[in-house]
Amino acid sequence: MTPTEIQHSDLVGTSAEAVRAAIRTASYTGHTAGLAAGKLQCNLAILPEKYALDFLRFCQRNPKPCPIVGVGDSGDPTLPTLGRDIDIRTDVPKYRVFRNGTLREEVTDITDVWTDDLVTVALGCSFTFENALLRNGIPVRHVESGLNVPMFRTNIDLVPAGRFGGQMVVTMRPIPEAQVEQAREISRRFPQAHGAPIAAGDPADIGITDLARPDWGDPVEMKSGEVPVYWACGVTPQNVLLDAGLPICITHSPGHMLISDVAEDAETTILTKT
Amino acid sequence: MTPTEIQHSDLVGTSAEAVRAAIRTASYTGHTAGLAAGKLQCNLAILPEKYALDFLRFCQRNPKPCPIVGVGDSGDPTLPTLGRDIDIRTDVPKYRVFRNGTLREEVTDITDVWTDDLVTVALGCSFTFENALLRNGIPVRHVESGLNVPMFRTNIDLVPAGRFGGQMVVTMRPIPEAQVEQAREISRRFPQAHGAPIAAGDPADIGITDLARPDWGDPVEMKSGEVPVYWACGVTPQNVLLDAGLPICITHSPGHMLISDVAEDAETTILTKT
Repeated sequence: MTPTEIQHSDLVGTSAEAVRAAIRTASYTGHTAGLAAGKLQCNLAILPEKYALDFLRFCQRNPKPCPIVGVGDSGDPTLPTLGRDIDIRTDVPKYRVFRNGTLREEVTDITDVWTDDLVTVALGCSFTFENALLRNGIPVRHVESGLNVPMFRTNIDLVPAGRFGGQMVVTMRPIPEAQVEQAREISRRFPQAHGAPIAAGDPADIGITDLARPDWGDPVEMKSGEVPVYWACGVTPQNVLLDAGLPICITHSPGHMLISDVAEDAETTILTKT
Repeated sequence: MTPTEIQHSDLVGTSAEAVRAAIRTASYTGHTAGLAAGKLQCNLAILPEKYALDFLRFCQRNPKPCPIVGVGDSGDPTLPTLGRDIDIRTDVPKYRVFRNGTLREEVTDITDVWTDDLVTVALGCSFTFENALLRNGIPVRHVESGLNVPMFRTNIDLVPAGRFGGQMVVTMRPIPEAQVEQAREISRRFPQAHGAPIAAGDPADIGITDLARPDWGDPVEMKSGEVPVYWACGVTPQNVLLDAGLPICITHSPGHMLISDVAEDAETTILTKT
């Protein structure tokens, strides 16, 4: 399964194709933060065709947590609008396979699980706007600290569709008060990656009780003069999928994203012919 | 059917709700250009649920001609994310009903045609970026001239999905050469309304033979120093739907759009609770 163990540092600076190739053979099974710089990375949701129309409606109605960047044909493991050689059965470093809403296994290849009625939905991810914040001199605390971003359940209701619904999950990044507006303007330019923050300031306003105790990820330091800023999070659709209790659904493992060939700052998430 | 005949000029300056109310009773059955200023107007495609997943995949893969701004539940004529009181069976001034790819009737109400398996898809329209061009001092010739925008078939292949595919239709606007870049930057800010131009200059480059003979709409004057600039057009999905020969499909009549309550410059096309 793992012919040669490749490290994260070996892949920094290599192309999206090269990273996917290492992932495809399971030579690399780690997280994708900082890899294939400048390319769009994607959250992954694979579900039976029977539920796909409702799930797409759900994502369309909740574009901040669920920005759709690619949808596969039923039973087709390729995603030609996101990358010319993508095979979704092998090209994600780590997958989670759920049955009836319960995690059954975490694997590096879903070839054995794949069936002709599965539909792949790729959703944008926060790496895109974090890179833009960092490029513009805005600190991203969990990146500085080598931690996972803190994620919180909120009381913000999602717009339901079919059996999909619930409350939004957000990420929190402490931003110096003087840079909050700039952070908002920068992230708003990336609607395919959660867009502008959905709130800033008092966590109680959105139903968060304790910023020191995230529901997922790691707590991060809040420095003097910083404001907690909240962005819609890609864990939202994962939660919603689990709550829906589908017979089968497959997601990426947190941080182990699909790397596309689409430029992060492209006007659309559709590869143009070259 | 028409208790009181309301004129376009009577509705200029009134709210989106007031315009929809006049349309709902068929007191107004005219075009919607210039009405409900600042609100997003929408192209309309209504089709059987059986084909909706493929059609949404088609739109996702061709976001410039087919920007999805709202999707209804199957059989549900409301569109709460676009307007709180929308009933899609009555709230468009004029509809075209197609059966097996053939235009059967043009009506002001589709209550009799509506069935429990129909899905409404609302798509963005060029009025949005035209308003922004005009606000920024960029001329829009067909508006100045009181004409319909010229539309052309191109040789640009769409990304297919299921039975949906074909070539892109574009609109053309002559823009002074010095303002082409500004026009591009402005329209790029409206991904929900066709975004940046897909081409500029020689019509032959995209398979257009004669700018004086549009496939739909009116020819417009090209002044000295102006460049023809081409934007993806909402007639594209209409054509694609007709070519697909669905048992039934319903669109708006050209220029007779659905008026939403969503602000044209909102970050998303989803109404937020107020």
